[in-house]
Amino acid sequence: MTTGLGYRLGAEALGTFFLLAAVVGSGIMAERLTGDVALALLANTIATGAALYVLITAFGPVSGAHFNPAVTLAMALRGRIGWGEGGLFVIAQILGGLLGVVCAHVMFEIAPLQIGDQTRTGPAQWLAEAVATFGLVFFIFMAVARRPDSVAMVVGLYITSAYWFTASTSFANPAVTIARAFTTTFSGIAPGDAPAFIAAQLAGAVLAALAAIWFDRFKPA
Amino acid sequence: MTTGLGYRLGAEALGTFFLLAAVVGSGIMAERLTGDVALALLANTIATGAALYVLITAFGPVSGAHFNPAVTLAMALRGRIGWGEGGLFVIAQILGGLLGVVCAHVMFEIAPLQIGDQTRTGPAQWLAEAVATFGLVFFIFMAVARRPDSVAMVVGLYITSAYWFTASTSFANPAVTIARAFTTTFSGIAPGDAPAFIAAQLAGAVLAALAAIWFDRFKPA
Amino acid sequence: MTTGLGYRLGAEALGTFFLLAAVVGSGIMAERLTGDVALALLANTIATGAALYVLITAFGPVSGAHFNPAVTLAMALRGRIGWGEGGLFVIAQILGGLLGVVCAHVMFEIAPLQIGDQTRTGPAQWLAEAVATFGLVFFIFMAVARRPDSVAMVVGLYITSAYWFTASTSFANPAVTIARAFTTTFSGIAPGDAPAFIAAQLAGAVLAALAAIWFDRFKPA
Amino acid sequence: MTTGLGYRLGAEALGTFFLLAAVVGSGIMAERLTGDVALALLANTIATGAALYVLITAFGPVSGAHFNPAVTLAMALRGRIGWGEGGLFVIAQILGGLLGVVCAHVMFEIAPLQIGDQTRTGPAQWLAEAVATFGLVFFIFMAVARRPDSVAMVVGLYITSAYWFTASTSFANPAVTIARAFTTTFSGIAPGDAPAFIAAQLAGAVLAALAAIWFDRFKPA
Repeated sequence: MTTGLGYRLGAEALGTFFLLAAVVGSGIMAERLTGDVALALLANTIATGAALYVLITAFGPVSGAHFNPAVTLAMALRGRIGWGEGGLFVIAQILGGLLGVVCAHVMFEIAPLQIGDQTRTGPAQWLAEAVATFGLVFFIFMAVARRPDSVAMVVGLYITSAYWFTASTSFANPAVTIARAFTTTFSGIAPGDAPAFIAAQLAGAVLAALAAIWFDRFKPA
Repeated sequence: MTTGLGYRLGAEALGTFFLLAAVVGSGIMAERLTGDVALALLANTIATGAALYVLITAFGPVSGAHFNPAVTLAMALRGRIGWGEGGLFVIAQILGGLLGVVCAHVMFEIAPLQIGDQTRTGPAQWLAEAVATFGLVFFIFMAVARRPDSVAMVVGLYITSAYWFTASTSFANPAVTIARAFTTTFSGIAPGDAPAFIAAQLAGAVLAALAAIWFDRFKPA
Repeated sequence: MTTGLGYRLGAEALGTFFLLAAVVGSGIMAERLTGDVALALLANTIATGAALYVLITAFGPVSGAHFNPAVTLAMALRGRIGWGEGGLFVIAQILGGLLGVVCAHVMFEIAPLQIGDQTRTGPAQWLAEAVATFGLVFFIFMAVARRPDSVAMVVGLYITSAYWFTASTSFANPAVTIARAFTTTFSGIAPGDAPAFIAAQLAGAVLAALAAIWFDRFKPA
Repeated sequence: MTTGLGYRLGAEALGTFFLLAAVVGSGIMAERLTGDVALALLANTIATGAALYVLITAFGPVSGAHFNPAVTLAMALRGRIGWGEGGLFVIAQILGGLLGVVCAHVMFEIAPLQIGDQTRTGPAQWLAEAVATFGLVFFIFMAVARRPDSVAMVVGLYITSAYWFTASTSFANPAVTIARAFTTTFSGIAPGDAPAFIAAQLAGAVLAALAAIWFDRFKPA
């Protein structure tokens, strides 16, 4: 662990705080304003994708802007972050995410912590989470290696797309999954369904690290 | 105060004029065309975020493109603008914003100045404004210090997201709050509710300046 | 007139062709698919703003990517294009735009040329067109002088915003106005209403050129 | 054929896989969540345009990120890829696209392969496909020659616009057309209608290559 760890953990916590505030808060706002679920998801999508661009641009130069234990795992597998520091990152992400959900609930005047009740389970949903996280981690590695200035836009637009093309609306992030288990609103998940989501996400992330290693063996002229 | 003050004040006034014309005008257009409030807010969001990108790109090299007394206050606290010039910036912002509301009203053929009547009050709304303004000012400082070419996109997308994830739809700007107290349309606020909004915004801005100072002590390798 | 005039006129004609195909075609598609006018305008907005980014990126290095007699007039006033070449630009823009409308109509299997029947008139609409064109031309000049790589995004997002905040949905372009006088679909205008729109647009463009000259006297450090 | 062919074919296959997963998956999600076809197409549009930006940013430095036999044909015509390697690209694109459709179907728990049943035929639709593909290939060539860093955004926003302004919703890609012949969902096409679509697309691509050759004879100062 090197100098500046406190700043990096602060960046991970504050970034994941805002990410969850954006995901959960925009979901609450959307379901209050419309009865059309597609329109609600579109608003949720735009708020989330836009937030990711902002957060990664701001915190990327500080901590790498993971905000996601699956990303941190993949980075550790590739030797880009130590396992000890990676473990602290994950703790900061989970705590920051939980506080983000609480903040969203308080802003919208509902109970600060709730036990999620949305059923999200079954092999198709798990495949969706594995595909979503594979893509997220893989495209991060590809962009970091080839177009580092584009990472914030790549992640923001990837999630914008994946909210719609994966059947699970692309949680793709264990810290997000844990945090969303504490809301009964639009973006929630029942806590009992979270472990399988997280397992699928981690499997996708490991496969993505392997795929990126393969592509990185080739250096375009 | 240095040479070019007139240009800087002109930039602040004209930029805030267009910002308010966009916020209020797009709200009027949207509520005329649809009965779905989420769709109206989505149109309002897109028009506002797009305008911010344009205005900050155009005026950033002239005045810094604050358009916002909370941003000017935070910049003065960090010594990036003098208090005297900052005070003139705020006057230019408020005047420009009021003229922008008048212009929107005239374009849509309604009374030029109206007394806002939308109730927006209570601790949850104030928390939302503090969070919204904290994020706005904090991410501006982070981007200015680390990715200056991204500031226009960061602000445009931050507000795009914050319109949805804060319960107050993210005024996050005292000049905008004052100006929106003079319209009874979609984006209005009752004048009596404005002072508490502004207080919350200024509190958020001060906290953001402190947070940014802390992060700026760390220089990534 | 210099070498390469044919390429520049080709760029103006082909660019304005695609611009009108996008404006009129997306309007037809939208009004066929939904009864919600705000949703139709949102689709029309996104298609137009996206097309502008593409067209200006592609043709900017060839002709400057005006696609708009008001822009060409402002450029001639500032000595950036000769009056003779400017006149040829306008002819190319008008012809390209008309062909774009015909192409949209044929793709959607309706009469190739129609006489527009939508009433768009009155001082408020004319003010809206003057404001819309003032902003368009002014922000182009500001971006060209200070952030030339951003011009395509500035114009795309400016029109995205102005479709909503101006009461006239921001024609802001005499070639577009003429072309839209030949469709009875979503984006049309009655031919008798076109001349006043064009006069307002040209007035806005002249004012914008003057404002940009004033700001260009100041060179930020 | 040079070193690294395996990586390039892998990039084409994986990129077209994600492209089709995004196109078909987001169409399924959208039609499940809303009865408003314009809203469904808007979600489909945003998911597709965002995915294209991500995929081209990630794979552009590896294979050129064609994901489209019409693009590969145009590149071969201009001598930028050999005919042998181009043929392998097309095979990789078609296989990747089919697997993408299967993946979308499995994620949404419907039959993995279906025989498309949406009628999309007639001269107006074919003209739309020719126009859509002409624009896609032409603007790719223009951007590659003049603004190579903008290609991902140009393609993403071009398709965003063309989904709305072409009457066929802009397939503009033979591999996409073949893959979409194997779904009965929102984005499907009857297999019997596919060959004429593909012929129109290839005609548009050839014309675009010719137009780009003409413009490339002019070098702006």
